[in-house]
Amino acid sequence: MPANTDPRYDVIAIGNAVVDVIASCTEELIDELQLNRGGMTLIDEARADELYEAMPPARELSGGSAANTLAGLATLGLQCAFIGQVADDQLGKVFRHDMRATGIDFDTPARDGEPATGRVLIFVTPDGERTMNTFLGAGQFLPAAALDEELIASGAILYLEGYLWDPEEPRRAMRRAIEVAREAGRKIAFTASESFVIARHGDDFRAMIEEGVIDILFVNESELATLTGEDDFEAGLAAVAGKVPVLVATRSEKGAVAVAHGERAEVAAEPVAKVIDTTGAGDQFAAGFLSGYAKGEPLAQCLKRGAICASEVIAHYGPRPEADMQALMAERL
Amino acid sequence: MPANTDPRYDVIAIGNAVVDVIASCTEELIDELQLNRGGMTLIDEARADELYEAMPPARELSGGSAANTLAGLATLGLQCAFIGQVADDQLGKVFRHDMRATGIDFDTPARDGEPATGRVLIFVTPDGERTMNTFLGAGQFLPAAALDEELIASGAILYLEGYLWDPEEPRRAMRRAIEVAREAGRKIAFTASESFVIARHGDDFRAMIEEGVIDILFVNESELATLTGEDDFEAGLAAVAGKVPVLVATRSEKGAVAVAHGERAEVAAEPVAKVIDTTGAGDQFAAGFLSGYAKGEPLAQCLKRGAICASEVIAHYGPRPEADMQALMAERL
Repeated sequence: MPANTDPRYDVIAIGNAVVDVIASCTEELIDELQLNRGGMTLIDEARADELYEAMPPARELSGGSAANTLAGLATLGLQCAFIGQVADDQLGKVFRHDMRATGIDFDTPARDGEPATGRVLIFVTPDGERTMNTFLGAGQFLPAAALDEELIASGAILYLEGYLWDPEEPRRAMRRAIEVAREAGRKIAFTASESFVIARHGDDFRAMIEEGVIDILFVNESELATLTGEDDFEAGLAAVAGKVPVLVATRSEKGAVAVAHGERAEVAAEPVAKVIDTTGAGDQFAAGFLSGYAKGEPLAQCLKRGAICASEVIAHYGPRPEADMQALMAERL
Repeated sequence: MPANTDPRYDVIAIGNAVVDVIASCTEELIDELQLNRGGMTLIDEARADELYEAMPPARELSGGSAANTLAGLATLGLQCAFIGQVADDQLGKVFRHDMRATGIDFDTPARDGEPATGRVLIFVTPDGERTMNTFLGAGQFLPAAALDEELIASGAILYLEGYLWDPEEPRRAMRRAIEVAREAGRKIAFTASESFVIARHGDDFRAMIEEGVIDILFVNESELATLTGEDDFEAGLAAVAGKVPVLVATRSEKGAVAVAHGERAEVAAEPVAKVIDTTGAGDQFAAGFLSGYAKGEPLAQCLKRGAICASEVIAHYGPRPEADMQALMAERL
């Protein structure tokens, strides 16, 4: 593979291929089911069946953290391809359809037999906060062999989600993907995904940061604290900022901060008339930021793009943009 | 079965068990795919695959005309049960979950093997109008043997959708269900569903009306015209009003008219800030109307309930209520 040939894609992402099952619910139901309010919890199929049984009527929309970010990027006009594992079933077909219909190339073959395509049972409380319960299904078996190395080498940025570090096969696949991308001279963007992932795989993440493997790191406030062991936000920033070329830290309604090559920029959260469902907020912030970064825009403008994308997605159910995002950018940037 | 025992359910419905696949689209796509704008078209699996391929990213929500009406009724606090045919697959499980999670009893066994659970590909244009393309799937094989006759006899009202007249097995099942309900002294409510159904089965419907089999008839303006051959709305009303105890004719943004036992009432459409998706408007109007009718409320109030329910459902994607409908009724009635 010749290094540094012109990339065919702006962003290649590897992530969980899951369908979100989203229902509104009361605070009481969160307590009754003993859910991890506001967080993401991995569950097995038996627990998924139990929670689904107790769940109010729902809507199904394709999800997955990196897949959502990619959908945002494609909607903003970037060339994107996805690698992820669905099963050969109806939900797998729904996921593939939604990726391709967004203009994303997605050719990882479906996996035969059990388990089914992954799904995330999302309980949305009246304040718009989402509580996610993920049955990874086929996704936990994404093998390194399923990686299209030529494809990975052909993207300017390889985007990876921390969630994939948890199951063993995808973790191995991620390591191989990083090697391939770096050999081709590509950049690695990484989202830490969730504090519990960092609690389990923080040593691995910190080693990658120390080794300079990660070019662009996305974290939220609590992930930064778990990653650095610093409860103070500024101390957490300081602990990582010098070790990654671009660090982006989101803080929900308090906006976001980025530090890149010693330069710091901040953005306030965009106003939202009513928060309906926060699912996808971080994913779409990353999409907005990367869409600017890929074009070499100033850091503050990349952040502003992120804030605009996040504000769009939390104003409706579902983790991917519904508005004409290019028009929205033109209007609000 | 002793006639006129106290009914256990307020409403039993028999209808298509389908999942709606809803996408926003441009007017150009409707033309390009040669869709029947604003209508419902039955399609085979090959056409369903072709249209899905061309469809923008979508959301999945449980649908089906009578099933939607029942969901509205259950949300309003009525005791309901459903009979319909899903396949033993993921979409079938989604449909069953959503019915039961709404508080509706639904115990018709899933059908093994092909075809899959039915789905409706719904293209929503910027004006909120929905264009439906239905692959009936397992639904076209609802056999008379699947009817739980004891259940049917236990509902005060049996609600049937005209859509079920099109495939042969369900049509036979409907006739048997009507016999069972009438023997038990129950009322029959019928929605004509779509002009093309009336064009194909109008003789059957007219015979049922003449025989006095239908107690409550729901039509929209164009269905009334197809049913009666009268282009003039008032002439159409006059042609049917004397033959059914309760006639309800909806007219979209022009409101609705009901004629019952010689009394006439009208209602204006409720104001809606923005029409997002008209899917389910007629179904929820019927739910609102029946919820009042079941309690013996005045005709004008039944209509008002219908208008409130229709206005709620067209303000969001999906064919079933999302608001707290009992609170909304208390506030707006």
